[in-house]
Amino acid sequence: MLDKHNIATQYQQIQNTICEKLEFLDSKAVFETENWQRKGGGGGCSRVIQNGDLIEKGGVNFSAVHGILPDAIKKLFKTKNNNFFATGISIVLHPNNPWVPIIHLNIRYFEMDNDLKWFGGGIDVTPHYVIEADAIRFHKHLKHVCDNYQSTFYTKFKAWADDYFYIKHRNETRGIGGIFYDRLTPQNTDLSWEQIFEFSKTIGNTFIPIYENLVSQTRKLPFTAQQKNWQYQRRSRYAEFNLVYDSGTKFGLETDGRIESILMSMPPMAAWVYNYQASANSNEAKTLDLLRKGINWVAK
Amino acid sequence: MLDKHNIATQYQQIQNTICEKLEFLDSKAVFETENWQRKGGGGGCSRVIQNGDLIEKGGVNFSAVHGILPDAIKKLFKTKNNNFFATGISIVLHPNNPWVPIIHLNIRYFEMDNDLKWFGGGIDVTPHYVIEADAIRFHKHLKHVCDNYQSTFYTKFKAWADDYFYIKHRNETRGIGGIFYDRLTPQNTDLSWEQIFEFSKTIGNTFIPIYENLVSQTRKLPFTAQQKNWQYQRRSRYAEFNLVYDSGTKFGLETDGRIESILMSMPPMAAWVYNYQASANSNEAKTLDLLRKGINWVAK
Repeated sequence: MLDKHNIATQYQQIQNTICEKLEFLDSKAVFETENWQRKGGGGGCSRVIQNGDLIEKGGVNFSAVHGILPDAIKKLFKTKNNNFFATGISIVLHPNNPWVPIIHLNIRYFEMDNDLKWFGGGIDVTPHYVIEADAIRFHKHLKHVCDNYQSTFYTKFKAWADDYFYIKHRNETRGIGGIFYDRLTPQNTDLSWEQIFEFSKTIGNTFIPIYENLVSQTRKLPFTAQQKNWQYQRRSRYAEFNLVYDSGTKFGLETDGRIESILMSMPPMAAWVYNYQASANSNEAKTLDLLRKGINWVAK
Repeated sequence: MLDKHNIATQYQQIQNTICEKLEFLDSKAVFETENWQRKGGGGGCSRVIQNGDLIEKGGVNFSAVHGILPDAIKKLFKTKNNNFFATGISIVLHPNNPWVPIIHLNIRYFEMDNDLKWFGGGIDVTPHYVIEADAIRFHKHLKHVCDNYQSTFYTKFKAWADDYFYIKHRNETRGIGGIFYDRLTPQNTDLSWEQIFEFSKTIGNTFIPIYENLVSQTRKLPFTAQQKNWQYQRRSRYAEFNLVYDSGTKFGLETDGRIESILMSMPPMAAWVYNYQASANSNEAKTLDLLRKGINWVAK
């Protein structure tokens, strides 16, 4: 049987491991830690790293909150249940070097009135400059991880990420996607609750090897001021996605979560340039061309 | 009788006058002009100024759009009407100098199925550093303008601005407010349609004298890199307000408006610093103390 407190404890252990390894990887900055309580019930542990060698600003948040579900969320979830419990880890890392992508991971467990329950999560990558070989390796890695649990997962969750991490008003995806899944239960996965929980933890534990792989070469690449400006511009799209579309952010704002923890995902510095046009065949134009749904990275 | 095309024409004349005077005031940059058509009907004229002496980035937009009302907006407006016509001017100016405030103005006219119609608008100021004497003069100016039309307007519209330009998740107002009004009709104002239209134009025409007044001293003040960083941080709050709460932005995104025109209000550069704490008695702390509802500026 699943035990929500056990899930929370194991998630927090994953948070600790990830932070330890990220500090080692960054080699310069260390995490600030803030334990916080939520008025309506529960709390969390926010860990933020800033001005590092690799990471300009990043957060690895854990929370386990419970209480009465706000009306706005009831509507969003189409439920009449009143009590909820939610635990999860959220990670967003903004690098210094524009050749290193932004990375995001979330794993979460949600329960209502001890009755409805599900797992959700995902991992996706937002390059300022898409490097095709890295995108292919990243997606192949995810497919391999998913295939160990359920042969249908990768294809389904990859398409789900394409749809979810989509900036409708720009008609562009946030980045090269990854996987996104929600409301996983034994009924819709053919796995036991224990297996789904294992899958969730595997996604959490895959974060460090994936990130190490993405940064090992790119962090050493030289870049120009013009490329840094491009990074600021891409970050403004990231900010738009998080504030306009992201369900996690909405959930946090509606449930009166700790605001600095919810918005730790926001970029350290971002630019909105009016009517920017990338020059033909530039690296910027090539990247914009790849910010669309349905690219079959594993077949490349 | 009101004629919607006449309203649009007169609004566009106000846009032209404002742009001409702003170029003179800036003395360095000139407006880029982009005329655009909306697929579903109508279009607009976006005028954007960047990298000026006074203005880092600013836009003065005119639009007159019509067509079928999207479902999301029907819900927002609680109406079953299908056809709409909307015209207006929107201005947002982000200055170089952190001592100069961000300013915003909007005047608009809305009509549904040739039946329901109303005027809306407002003007509000977001200082990076609140200068109390300027805030008082600004509010007294607005009260004077409002009093010429209706003695109840200033008090009502000032409170409305406090409520509207409020960043709930930060528990702070966007700035020192100003006035905000919506759905003005002869029924709720004791004015004729012609008088309400005149009021709307007067608000538009008051933009330049108000802005001249706010910038004349502040644009010459020296500032430090640390103060510029504070400006970047305040701009991130402005971005949050526009993307999370602003109805005009939502309306634009939902009605497939021209995205670069809708988001011309976004700051040229903005920073999210984790868990920033202003030092006691600093100018930054004093400003944060004044970002709240209900300050009676005209009585100061």
